[in-house]
Amino acid sequence: MAGMMIKKHSRAIFCSLALVLTFLILTPQLPADEGMWPLSELPRLNLKEKGLRMDPALIYDPARESLLYAVVQIGATGSFISPDGLIITNHHVAFGSVVAASTPEKDYLKNGFLAKTRAEEIPATGRTARITESFRDVSAEVLSAVRKNMSYAERTRAIEQQIKKIVAEAEKANPGKKAEVAEMFPGKTYWLFLYTELRDIRLVYVPPLAIGNFGGEEDNWMWPRHTGDFTLMRAYVAPDGKPAEYSEKNVPYRPRTYIRINPQGASEGDFVFLLGYPGRTYRHLPASYIAFEQNVRMPAVADWYEWQIKLMEEMSKAGRDVALKHDSRIKGLANTMKNYRGKLAGLRRLNYLEQKKQEETELQEFIQRDPGRRALYGQVLPELEKIYAEMSREYPRVFVLENLRRSVILFQNAMTVVEATHERQKPDLERSAAYMDRNFNQTRQRLALNLKSNFYLPTDVAIFRELLKKALALPEALKIEALNQLVSAGGNVDETVDKLFMSTKMADYEFIKKLLEKKPEEIKQVDDLMLKLALSLYPEYKKMEEANRARKGQMDELQAKLVDVRQEFLARQFIPDANGTLRLTFGRVEGYEPRDAVYYRPFTTVQGILEKTTGKEPFDSPVELLQLINQKKFEGFINPALDTVSVCLLYSTDTTGGNSGSPILDADGRLVGVNFDRAWEATINDFTWSHRFSRSIGVDIRYILWILKEFAGADHLLQEIGVR
Amino acid sequence: MAGMMIKKHSRAIFCSLALVLTFLILTPQLPADEGMWPLSELPRLNLKEKGLRMDPALIYDPARESLLYAVVQIGATGSFISPDGLIITNHHVAFGSVVAASTPEKDYLKNGFLAKTRAEEIPATGRTARITESFRDVSAEVLSAVRKNMSYAERTRAIEQQIKKIVAEAEKANPGKKAEVAEMFPGKTYWLFLYTELRDIRLVYVPPLAIGNFGGEEDNWMWPRHTGDFTLMRAYVAPDGKPAEYSEKNVPYRPRTYIRINPQGASEGDFVFLLGYPGRTYRHLPASYIAFEQNVRMPAVADWYEWQIKLMEEMSKAGRDVALKHDSRIKGLANTMKNYRGKLAGLRRLNYLEQKKQEETELQEFIQRDPGRRALYGQVLPELEKIYAEMSREYPRVFVLENLRRSVILFQNAMTVVEATHERQKPDLERSAAYMDRNFNQTRQRLALNLKSNFYLPTDVAIFRELLKKALALPEALKIEALNQLVSAGGNVDETVDKLFMSTKMADYEFIKKLLEKKPEEIKQVDDLMLKLALSLYPEYKKMEEANRARKGQMDELQAKLVDVRQEFLARQFIPDANGTLRLTFGRVEGYEPRDAVYYRPFTTVQGILEKTTGKEPFDSPVELLQLINQKKFEGFINPALDTVSVCLLYSTDTTGGNSGSPILDADGRLVGVNFDRAWEATINDFTWSHRFSRSIGVDIRYILWILKEFAGADHLLQEIGVR
Repeated sequence: MAGMMIKKHSRAIFCSLALVLTFLILTPQLPADEGMWPLSELPRLNLKEKGLRMDPALIYDPARESLLYAVVQIGATGSFISPDGLIITNHHVAFGSVVAASTPEKDYLKNGFLAKTRAEEIPATGRTARITESFRDVSAEVLSAVRKNMSYAERTRAIEQQIKKIVAEAEKANPGKKAEVAEMFPGKTYWLFLYTELRDIRLVYVPPLAIGNFGGEEDNWMWPRHTGDFTLMRAYVAPDGKPAEYSEKNVPYRPRTYIRINPQGASEGDFVFLLGYPGRTYRHLPASYIAFEQNVRMPAVADWYEWQIKLMEEMSKAGRDVALKHDSRIKGLANTMKNYRGKLAGLRRLNYLEQKKQEETELQEFIQRDPGRRALYGQVLPELEKIYAEMSREYPRVFVLENLRRSVILFQNAMTVVEATHERQKPDLERSAAYMDRNFNQTRQRLALNLKSNFYLPTDVAIFRELLKKALALPEALKIEALNQLVSAGGNVDETVDKLFMSTKMADYEFIKKLLEKKPEEIKQVDDLMLKLALSLYPEYKKMEEANRARKGQMDELQAKLVDVRQEFLARQFIPDANGTLRLTFGRVEGYEPRDAVYYRPFTTVQGILEKTTGKEPFDSPVELLQLINQKKFEGFINPALDTVSVCLLYSTDTTGGNSGSPILDADGRLVGVNFDRAWEATINDFTWSHRFSRSIGVDIRYILWILKEFAGADHLLQEIGVR
Repeated sequence: MAGMMIKKHSRAIFCSLALVLTFLILTPQLPADEGMWPLSELPRLNLKEKGLRMDPALIYDPARESLLYAVVQIGATGSFISPDGLIITNHHVAFGSVVAASTPEKDYLKNGFLAKTRAEEIPATGRTARITESFRDVSAEVLSAVRKNMSYAERTRAIEQQIKKIVAEAEKANPGKKAEVAEMFPGKTYWLFLYTELRDIRLVYVPPLAIGNFGGEEDNWMWPRHTGDFTLMRAYVAPDGKPAEYSEKNVPYRPRTYIRINPQGASEGDFVFLLGYPGRTYRHLPASYIAFEQNVRMPAVADWYEWQIKLMEEMSKAGRDVALKHDSRIKGLANTMKNYRGKLAGLRRLNYLEQKKQEETELQEFIQRDPGRRALYGQVLPELEKIYAEMSREYPRVFVLENLRRSVILFQNAMTVVEATHERQKPDLERSAAYMDRNFNQTRQRLALNLKSNFYLPTDVAIFRELLKKALALPEALKIEALNQLVSAGGNVDETVDKLFMSTKMADYEFIKKLLEKKPEEIKQVDDLMLKLALSLYPEYKKMEEANRARKGQMDELQAKLVDVRQEFLARQFIPDANGTLRLTFGRVEGYEPRDAVYYRPFTTVQGILEKTTGKEPFDSPVELLQLINQKKFEGFINPALDTVSVCLLYSTDTTGGNSGSPILDADGRLVGVNFDRAWEATINDFTWSHRFSRSIGVDIRYILWILKEFAGADHLLQEIGVR
């Protein structure tokens, strides 16, 4: 056929050459790979071969000032980009702080914010930035607490206690540091991390919402993207250099190392890597888990979040101040909803459940073939399947209980009071984490901030009413007795809800603060129907917690075995699922083909902003920005391949939630952008990774610098980060 | 900057070369141009230079068997592809005929149809195929009927009469031919076309709806596309070779020439051209016309069609037989609605109205500069603006009257009866076209077919009710008296509507047929409320018709002047807007960039069908098709550049509605596909053409042949068209 073409077309030879080259560019055979690598695994990776030019030891070497120390956990991820503790992260990571700092008069969310001097920098209340200082394997210590004859719940509790003990000891041995034990492989591998936690974080530069969140929920998880999703903050410490709460006397933190900017940015095909704190992936879980997520949990949550979003959008029509109360919540709900919908679509597209089942069929055959393996692993998959089947059955009940706490702020507050009064009676180490001395202050602060920033009574009432209706509709076997009694006593749903919210003071932080110090018996005397409801449901939550603990104990054991036998079966060594600890991922700047005949190029441009701008949210660019684009004031910030300023870029790294704000680093370890999202097709990353679809999305450093220079006039910040 | 890049990246040189080549391929500087060219203009075009290899005279030379004679007007366009009168066109062009031939038992629409022998070919009732035989300029004859002192209405009527006379004379002089005079430039240039009209057309092969309309309304006007939108029909004539109505004795028509197939198909960058009957474009109209369309008419129609679609979808839930009654209507409404929405988006994207206004400001200055021009053309633009302002004011009233006739079938039937009885009293040449002897039979047949295929009482009632409500809400100055009286007499809207539809026999074709032969006085005696309503509204429609006639007279004069002065101003010669006459357009097989960072490749593949298939309409591929794709049974039909079967292709020709079914011809004049749509961004073609956005969509010949061979097993048809 090719021969016929050449005879037919005089241009064929040129075309063939061009097509071959196009093919090379568009579907490159470049090293990009699955993997959110713990830094200790870097030697296994051989990054030099993949394209890294800098010394890999300068990424992670406890003995040297390596890049590790420039990356912070700050909600998601951020990184130091100046010797004076300037942090770059995402606009959406700082979102809550910007909302909290905003008032209808000083609407920093809408209009953006620039501190012209350090004195003008605003505290980002409640925000902390953690630096990973060191980590080590403590699996043996953790698992030494497990005894043969323990029940599953006892097993889990024993591990929990042991971990708390290890943490307490580590913090005692390392004054001023925060310790945390992370499950690397559940039931199998545990690492102890030591962190420096900076507690005085301030806002330095925030672009207006119409830049930082341009495209809003509509563009979220989508390519092509034109969002300037970045923000600058600064970490402060006490004058003695130690972490401290906010104080006027505090001074900028001087990080051990910081990341240099590459103002030339990246080009198509370039090697890049990211450091960050990816939250959760589920790649080592069985098909039965995928089935539970795909058929039960994710569809229910996505629908429920969609319902809440519509409600909140309706409520937001009451005015800008009311809208501000909902902005952050809607953003969060929509983010998860769209992510779940993307995952559900991706699971279908890849036929992942069937693939996984197929693999497990073969795995089970592999297990059965050998008597030793059969004895050890024969029941692993069937047992896991049983657990997920049970979870599916119970899910409608769990859904109501979980979402009462998650979505109804006043009920959440009441439950916090009830739990606090109970937990605070126990010795510190036996308490749930939120009520331990080390965390209790933050728990209080979060409650206060949540009330201040997010609470709107009519929304709370409407959500509660809807959940109550769902509770009443549960089948007999799943009924939540306390809720049924509540309505029986109240007459009907509407009257019950009205009474409940009329009688409660759970929106009064000063009142709550006092209750938080009381004893359980005292709480019972308080005349507050919401508190009484929380008290009557408390045993339900305790029961659920205990059941989860038992289930976790069993699953940990089964999952540890599953990882062992799958590694044997597939003859390769796994790396642990993401778990909120520091990881590295690498890839290339490259586009992709989301579907047949559609190719997404890896860079968007400022011209695309003009195309998208409608003047209406979420596509309402600031007039000044449009003017700058129309005037082509681009000098010094041009992407030479496109002859204009590139806004966002795509690359084939392996990321998930928590990687937001991760620095995009070039082969020399210099900043070429800030990661903020994954493409819609890459939401599937949480379950599996594919070179065809797994693309992450970042803001191009050239757009960031251009905005700072031409739009914000923040020359002092450019100078601070060493640009011009 | 480029120098810095080379220093930075070792791969840069390769990349640069590749990027340059990519650029050449992706945004080619290839000859593609605005223009739906009348065939007489071909010498001006110099197609050899653009890429044509065949002798251009073989496209159009009245003296030779040129391609002209292989192209038919068949609703939209079709072409002969065998010596035995086999016609290839679109599935959606044949749609109505397939619906009419289908019953719930023999659902050819759903399941497709293949005639294994010629005896099995099914009549496509009411369908005709016209071949353009010749054309000549008759402007002088037409305009000779205009007298100086005529009113605008008289002027229009005089031209209408003159045209009828010319047509009658031409048909008399050319027995068996159909004559038609087409306005090339309104008020300025008129051409007489002679057609051979074949009246016995039969269905030969129809793919199942899930292939022929794969993607349905969702994919309509969209790329990437995976629709096998083609159908085969055959033209029959009397044994003596003359056009005739259907008869068993008829024999296949032997066209003077037919188009050869190129089973290798086209490649990216190839020159292609189309012949076809594009319906209407509006490129020579003023900005005030665009404003009227953009701000008044198109948004109103789009909303109204959307309302009707929702209604009909709701009704269709009653069962497959009811759904069949609505399929064709929904398809038509959705098609227009989406087209209008696309145009509205395109007008905004190109800021076309502002551009056009700018051009007219400059044009007006050009006119004002010269006293002679000022005297002749000074008032052209202001007058046109006045007309469109008046049309905007009146539009809400016109909307109701127009849509009563267009959307309510029983009212439409009643109006046809009323009009017929009035018109048929006049001498033949003075009648409206539908009631002239030459057309009256077709008018009757269409009415019968429409009743049979599309009428569903509850839908008719609901649409009428909605329009009646709109009529009652009209401002005083625009009120439609007859409709207000109807409701006053009926009590309220619902009762009025009920009574009206209870009392009418306008769904009974036999009854209507008899009425069509009666006199106006007799009609008045018939006891049928719908008929009475039509009688009472008849004067309104006559008034509207007369007002339109006057307006057309004035506009023709103004537009003719506008074309003259714009040609002078722009110093180039225009080609006439599309007007349903035969045209040629050429371009290249090429993708495009619909928006920043998104590139649409010019070919889709059968793998894309797998990706899109959800199992639910409109993405419910036949199981056998999916199997063939999964088995990769592609031999002989592979697109070598993609190593699979390509389904649809994109090319930069200038097309509009009516080009549906146009043959896509390669540089040698061989068939490489069948045109069936434009991309969403190209809906703007009706107003303007852009190389960036104007892409047409066709079915790839390889997919057609593959479907015929592997899916349909139609080897006898492949043999007939000379493939294998």
